[in-house]
Amino acid sequence: MGKQEWGFQENHELHAAAAFTIRNILESIMGNIDEKRSGKPKIHLGHGDPSVYPCFRTSTSVEDALVESIRSAKFNCYPAGVGIDPARSAIAELLSKDLPYKIETDDVFLTAGGNHAIEILLTVLGRPGANILFPRPNYPVYEARARFSPLEVRHYDLLPEKGWEVDLDGVKALADSNTVAIVLINPGNPCGNVFTFDHMQKIAETAREIGMLIISDEVYAHQVFADKPFIPMGVLGDIAPVLTLGSLSKRWIVPGWRFGWIAITDPTSILQQTGVAGSLKSCLTISADPPTVIQGAIPHVIKNTPKSFFLNINKLLKEAADMFFEKIKEVPNVTCPHKPEGSMFAMVKLNIPAFEDVVDDTDFCTKLAKEECMVLFPGDAVCLKNWVRVSFATEPKVLDDAIERMKAFCMRHAKHM
Amino acid sequence: MGKQEWGFQENHELHAAAAFTIRNILESIMGNIDEKRSGKPKIHLGHGDPSVYPCFRTSTSVEDALVESIRSAKFNCYPAGVGIDPARSAIAELLSKDLPYKIETDDVFLTAGGNHAIEILLTVLGRPGANILFPRPNYPVYEARARFSPLEVRHYDLLPEKGWEVDLDGVKALADSNTVAIVLINPGNPCGNVFTFDHMQKIAETAREIGMLIISDEVYAHQVFADKPFIPMGVLGDIAPVLTLGSLSKRWIVPGWRFGWIAITDPTSILQQTGVAGSLKSCLTISADPPTVIQGAIPHVIKNTPKSFFLNINKLLKEAADMFFEKIKEVPNVTCPHKPEGSMFAMVKLNIPAFEDVVDDTDFCTKLAKEECMVLFPGDAVCLKNWVRVSFATEPKVLDDAIERMKAFCMRHAKHM
Ligand SMILES: Cc1ncc(COP(=O)(O)O)c(C=O)c1O
Ligand SMILES: Cc1ncc(COP(=O)(O)O)c(C=O)c1O
Repeated sequence: MGKQEWGFQENHELHAAAAFTIRNILESIMGNIDEKRSGKPKIHLGHGDPSVYPCFRTSTSVEDALVESIRSAKFNCYPAGVGIDPARSAIAELLSKDLPYKIETDDVFLTAGGNHAIEILLTVLGRPGANILFPRPNYPVYEARARFSPLEVRHYDLLPEKGWEVDLDGVKALADSNTVAIVLINPGNPCGNVFTFDHMQKIAETAREIGMLIISDEVYAHQVFADKPFIPMGVLGDIAPVLTLGSLSKRWIVPGWRFGWIAITDPTSILQQTGVAGSLKSCLTISADPPTVIQGAIPHVIKNTPKSFFLNINKLLKEAADMFFEKIKEVPNVTCPHKPEGSMFAMVKLNIPAFEDVVDDTDFCTKLAKEECMVLFPGDAVCLKNWVRVSFATEPKVLDDAIERMKAFCMRHAKHM
Repeated sequence: MGKQEWGFQENHELHAAAAFTIRNILESIMGNIDEKRSGKPKIHLGHGDPSVYPCFRTSTSVEDALVESIRSAKFNCYPAGVGIDPARSAIAELLSKDLPYKIETDDVFLTAGGNHAIEILLTVLGRPGANILFPRPNYPVYEARARFSPLEVRHYDLLPEKGWEVDLDGVKALADSNTVAIVLINPGNPCGNVFTFDHMQKIAETAREIGMLIISDEVYAHQVFADKPFIPMGVLGDIAPVLTLGSLSKRWIVPGWRFGWIAITDPTSILQQTGVAGSLKSCLTISADPPTVIQGAIPHVIKNTPKSFFLNINKLLKEAADMFFEKIKEVPNVTCPHKPEGSMFAMVKLNIPAFEDVVDDTDFCTKLAKEECMVLFPGDAVCLKNWVRVSFATEPKVLDDAIERMKAFCMRHAKHM
């Protein structure tokens, strides 16, 4: 038999989209890590997953809730596409506590994690000719998933000199009548900032003026530890309609449960009237579901996790942020312009010309991995060249060691004048 | 302020795709059910989810495995996109038992259920100008998800008079050099058939001739109860490359766990060489994941579920199939041409002209729901007009009652000559 011809082939579009994910970028940086050669234990500040550190272990009540769900044998069946009602209403109640109006069971759509919620939203809003506004810097999954949507992506800036506030003039200049939505991440990833009510009000008014909805990514809801409180964007839902994105991953420290949601926080029902809510339902009918067995645990997870658990997590994050912000000042040729107020991240600017042999952020992260056996996330991958993102959600000892390694690395590679 | 103009809108494409799902079709039929009015308890033979019946409850060892995974606190972290290695290798070992070669950890890609595996495969294989062959009748998720792929869908027939074998002449007539794949479902949904080795060999040779890969949907693997054994298509992977799709849902009776896989069963490595394997990895990097905590349970699920559990499930299915096939003969104006040999389903043909006031399969299912408080799945939705799909995976008492109701219904609606 001669050479066989096959009708199928490689899919290069998928490679291009995957290249833009935290996973793939970390994989390539991790490729430079060699604990044996460097003689140091690996330190991973590249992603927001503190679940591996004992001090960040989730609450026993969270584990108990899932065990109960399993043992009941009531949640082995297929779920509805939008999720099962007890879980939806538990989330509705949770979110309603922070809102001046009540959201209902039907306003909550369950997803297989926050990333899946992003996928759903970009699928629902996609149509040829439309555009969407993303922050710069951004959480990379938005960039990766947007490649599967006919939406044109436009980037507005977050301003480091203004505590990473939204560049509202930039937003107005970018938007037009085909702008469907603006994505906000609050508390911020990658910047660790928290928006004030005044600023949020201005954003909402701008959204209304433009005629776009707001996607408020609140995966880090309530993970704040400076003087600014967390305010959900839904509070301003009467100005412009808001779709609120949430997840169990960060607040309950169980990213491995892959459980998230989209909530309609739109008291004037514009999203119902325009059919966006119905489109969400249709999209979820044909998309992956969070396991019923996990959905079955949600009411107890929400009700039974003690306040002390969240207080302790925020205390740990605050201590880490404080230590990080003080110690990073000792590292030459890098600056952190804004002390983190929420989430688990800070952006650090590299003064590239001051380095002898570091050409950019990716080069920085690659060499740091090789020489110091530690992982940071390159700014290029969050759309901000020559910055790096640091996750400080780790044990104090580890964080301290990490900054010492950065310091040694930066001194070693500094230009000698 | 005048009438506000919004830039976002309803997504009609999503509605169209969702309309084709088991969920939405069942929802519309369930809308006719009224237990109070009919004075009868509802009987649901519309979908393949026996988990609600105590006799079909999953094995305790399966529940234990998940409890252990939670309590270990080792699986709260993010998984890799392709899944975690212990779970992948447990599946690789499981599948290798039935193959003349060994598949490796890296050949297994974990998905959030079989449906998600279908989504991934159609995304990976999609390119403009290409086409794919689906069976008629088909499992409807293939039809729904194909709408999101540039693939042109072509239907080959399964032949009821030949025990639902593939119409191979039809396949040859449909295919061309742009045909990327053929989908096979074995054991069959909706037909309940099982393929013989001889027939499978002919399919593999046809696939090779055409230059297409085989997607072998083996979600009902080993759920056979007639004289034909279950043979995985991967056995013939050296003739044409096979992607095997599997799931925990049916065999372990935990559809609510949303755990499935795609396995590369391709001993001559064509899928590696052509880049299809790499494209699968890229696709999974940007898609939903099965929860790590469920992945953590998989090695124990696979190792510890006693043989007796599977034997008992197959015994229950066999008894149900036997009873169904005997009793359905007493129902006037319907015929089941082929006794089910596997899965949980049978196709039943309606003799529409013999009914007084039933115009088609959807009308049949709607009126049956209204009058007899029971749910069947209309054949139209599996691409076979004027048939109905019956799920017989239920308790004997319930199945008996269901057939009695069908009988009463069909007698009442028969034309009086
Ligand atoms: C801003 C933001 N949105 C969404 C997600 C995804 O959440 P999940 O882990 O629940 O998929 C993350 C996770 O890092 C995130 O940082
Ligand atoms: C033929 C076939 N493939 C795939 C699936 C989906 O499997 P899962 O329930 O694991 O998503 C089903 C479920 O009914 C099925 O019948």
